[in-house]
Amino acid sequence: MSPEAKRVTPNDDAPYELIYWPGIPGRGELIRLLFEEAGVPYNDTAKTAGNNAVPTVLGYMSPDNKGDATNPPVFASPILKHGDLVINQTPNILLYLAPKLGLAPAEGDALFHLNEIVLTILDGFVGEVHETHHPIASSLNYEDQKPEAKKRSEVFVNERLPKYLGYVQRVLDAKTSGDGPWLYGGKLTYADLVLFQCIDGTQYAFPKAVGKLKDSGKYDSVFKLSDAVQERPNIKKYLGSDRRSAYSHGIWRLYPELDQE
Amino acid sequence: MSPEAKRVTPNDDAPYELIYWPGIPGRGELIRLLFEEAGVPYNDTAKTAGNNAVPTVLGYMSPDNKGDATNPPVFASPILKHGDLVINQTPNILLYLAPKLGLAPAEGDALFHLNEIVLTILDGFVGEVHETHHPIASSLNYEDQKPEAKKRSEVFVNERLPKYLGYVQRVLDAKTSGDGPWLYGGKLTYADLVLFQCIDGTQYAFPKAVGKLKDSGKYDSVFKLSDAVQERPNIKKYLGSDRRSAYSHGIWRLYPELDQE
Repeated sequence: MSPEAKRVTPNDDAPYELIYWPGIPGRGELIRLLFEEAGVPYNDTAKTAGNNAVPTVLGYMSPDNKGDATNPPVFASPILKHGDLVINQTPNILLYLAPKLGLAPAEGDALFHLNEIVLTILDGFVGEVHETHHPIASSLNYEDQKPEAKKRSEVFVNERLPKYLGYVQRVLDAKTSGDGPWLYGGKLTYADLVLFQCIDGTQYAFPKAVGKLKDSGKYDSVFKLSDAVQERPNIKKYLGSDRRSAYSHGIWRLYPELDQE
Repeated sequence: MSPEAKRVTPNDDAPYELIYWPGIPGRGELIRLLFEEAGVPYNDTAKTAGNNAVPTVLGYMSPDNKGDATNPPVFASPILKHGDLVINQTPNILLYLAPKLGLAPAEGDALFHLNEIVLTILDGFVGEVHETHHPIASSLNYEDQKPEAKKRSEVFVNERLPKYLGYVQRVLDAKTSGDGPWLYGGKLTYADLVLFQCIDGTQYAFPKAVGKLKDSGKYDSVFKLSDAVQERPNIKKYLGSDRRSAYSHGIWRLYPELDQE
């Protein structure tokens, strides 16, 4: 019997619950933006669980978490609970949600193009950005890996950041982006929301580096897209609300000594 | 008009083509194992393109690659061509292929569980393993980042490797793994093939570290699964053939100075 066969609650009418660390945008923000754009309510434990927000995340990540009858244990947050389904891994949650929220087609090859674009953007502007301040160990403080962080950041600013921005610009120049500012198929998809968050966060962490690349004029469509997302009415409302956390100690951190033109 | 509407060749009867670097198992191996297990023919440019194998990969990754009428440009290899569909990103290619090759259900929540398991295994045993020998820059030689590689490898061996092995063991202990040795739903899926390759490669790179963790007896189901995959008739035949590349300078590298018990 497959795990599905045991499922008791149909997911589609169930409420969405996002489980993520409180106090930072972080990877959770990539999920929040889909709900906010779609205007679909969600319970965000970072905002609603109060003192229980951190223990909730830690409970899911604990070695004592053995999963349940229909869900394997998860490795890390963000985690999405929808009815009796529990899943994690940011690109996986996005792929699950986007078609349900009208931000990707429900099936077909386009989903694999969108997933590939999103995975690449996350590699560059989330994974590699995190490595700039934690190149040796996530478990150590930044202060304990500063010389290595400086070296890794130089490579990020000089090689990796232009490489990823160049990739996104090429996706926007390609025929598959269609008309208008969006990455794929001529209409807004979840990939555009992900790109906005990634550009916004990376610009916070590396204002000089991103500023210089922006001024170069080589990636105009990328920054134009990011601006266009910010002008979406629901996103604009969200960004101006107190639901949007300020950047601080998460993935996108401002260490001026790591930034350079 | 969506990009699909312009598609001219139906993919399903089209041949599969894998585009990847020659001479190493690398990320390409994670794709090859699906074809080999399923007994489905595929054209592997690393093996068939001769002197053109490297230029083929470089052509796709070039800034001059603007994609085509139905495919956006890709960032890096492995790349899959199936009919007129071109996609990249390892977990994305796997998600596309697995249902077609009978190694995952065609739809439903199980796909998101499998995708989450695979993404996590790739994070730990591909992404983090690569960082052990290239913690500062992919573009530099290992010899130019040896002190940092040593530090990162210590953290990998002492913290990250046990953490990821513990996660996989928990997935195998969970109710959702069903009966038998497999990760999910009581039958072989692509996640099991991915796990085998990741354990095999990591064991090559860190024989002492993996050996000690194996001897601890804490992760017996993980190593049992890896053994079970190797005993699958088609996989066994493949591993004994000259189609299987030896490990050398790819993701999984043997630098004895980075290994420790």
